[in-house]
Amino acid sequence: MPVAPDRYAPTPRTTPTRDNGRVTYDRELVHGILDSEYLCHVGFVADTAPVVLPTLYARVEDRLYLHGSSGSRLMLLAREGVAVCVTVTCLDGLVLARSARHHSANYRSVVVHGTAHRVSEEREARLAVDRIVDHAVPGRAADIRPPSAKELAATGVLRLDIAEVSAKVRSGGVNEEPEDLDLPHWAGVLPLRRSVGAPRPDPKMPDDVALPAYLEHYTTG
Amino acid sequence: MPVAPDRYAPTPRTTPTRDNGRVTYDRELVHGILDSEYLCHVGFVADTAPVVLPTLYARVEDRLYLHGSSGSRLMLLAREGVAVCVTVTCLDGLVLARSARHHSANYRSVVVHGTAHRVSEEREARLAVDRIVDHAVPGRAADIRPPSAKELAATGVLRLDIAEVSAKVRSGGVNEEPEDLDLPHWAGVLPLRRSVGAPRPDPKMPDDVALPAYLEHYTTG
Repeated sequence: MPVAPDRYAPTPRTTPTRDNGRVTYDRELVHGILDSEYLCHVGFVADTAPVVLPTLYARVEDRLYLHGSSGSRLMLLAREGVAVCVTVTCLDGLVLARSARHHSANYRSVVVHGTAHRVSEEREARLAVDRIVDHAVPGRAADIRPPSAKELAATGVLRLDIAEVSAKVRSGGVNEEPEDLDLPHWAGVLPLRRSVGAPRPDPKMPDDVALPAYLEHYTTG
Repeated sequence: MPVAPDRYAPTPRTTPTRDNGRVTYDRELVHGILDSEYLCHVGFVADTAPVVLPTLYARVEDRLYLHGSSGSRLMLLAREGVAVCVTVTCLDGLVLARSARHHSANYRSVVVHGTAHRVSEEREARLAVDRIVDHAVPGRAADIRPPSAKELAATGVLRLDIAEVSAKVRSGGVNEEPEDLDLPHWAGVLPLRRSVGAPRPDPKMPDDVALPAYLEHYTTG
């Protein structure tokens, strides 16, 4: 089996017009970002105009699986392969500088370019649905009723190879022009993170169904 | 002054192919979603292929202002007007059903279609930068050094009218097939929200600069 390289190869469209040191092609870092967010934003072109939609997804090695409704425009376009751009962004903080110009955000984002295809083979579609469920809540896919063949056919699943990809990371503190450092404005970073509230059980659940261990200790990326 | 209607007019591309009751054109609801998230994902077409990028933004009445670097591809395209799709998504929870098929997410999203233009007039660019700063941290724009004319010229600001727009909302509990209700799997909703950590002051700040009131009581949407 070929060993995957540590770094994705840059292409013209994954090379920034002006490099500010934030762009990286590191495979592990790209995977880490893709694995730590719930939603991606998928862009495609419909009648020459861009469309951007949020959707659930999962990564399996160097592939992304995207979830959708089988009747949606994107899924119909994907039957013959559709050019997409899939972007995942984790927002980590707000960077508050003394100057308007240096206000920024701490974030980690991944942009994947490629051609997405509709998954038609049942075995691959089952794997994708399992992984999409487990991506949100690890351990969950083994503790649900799996989709019937009919349900699977009504679920649109797209596959996109992760090959033309870059990540962008901004972290750390405030940048500032030296002459602004003594201005009387508070400066620093407001850290942001996602937190999970107490699980809200479905009132229709039988009394003897306990909260599973994978939810008792659930934390978010 | 004309009174703004309560509801945006649907168009073919803001009308879902299959309506599941989640789509709305309510003006107040659209504005509420746009005002409660930090980042948007902006899609555009570059050499026939879609590109999706995260960026900071703000709403001013029925306009969106998007922030970017003046040398970026999007900003260069926007000098003549560029077709964009701007999507804002607030993720509110994970919906864990007994069946794979009914797994879902609670979310509120807005999709705006239109032509974005580069803001060239200094007064409008200043307003946009102020609002983008205040969108993230209300009250902040009055407590920073405003951009110089040179800094403003190096900041790319895009304007997009909010006219062709729809919102989509999924909230509440678990949907399930009646025959699945007694299955022995836990079902319910995991609420997600964004939380803010303790502000991290810039170590270069003079000792006598206090945390401003608008940060002491800061909460996120």
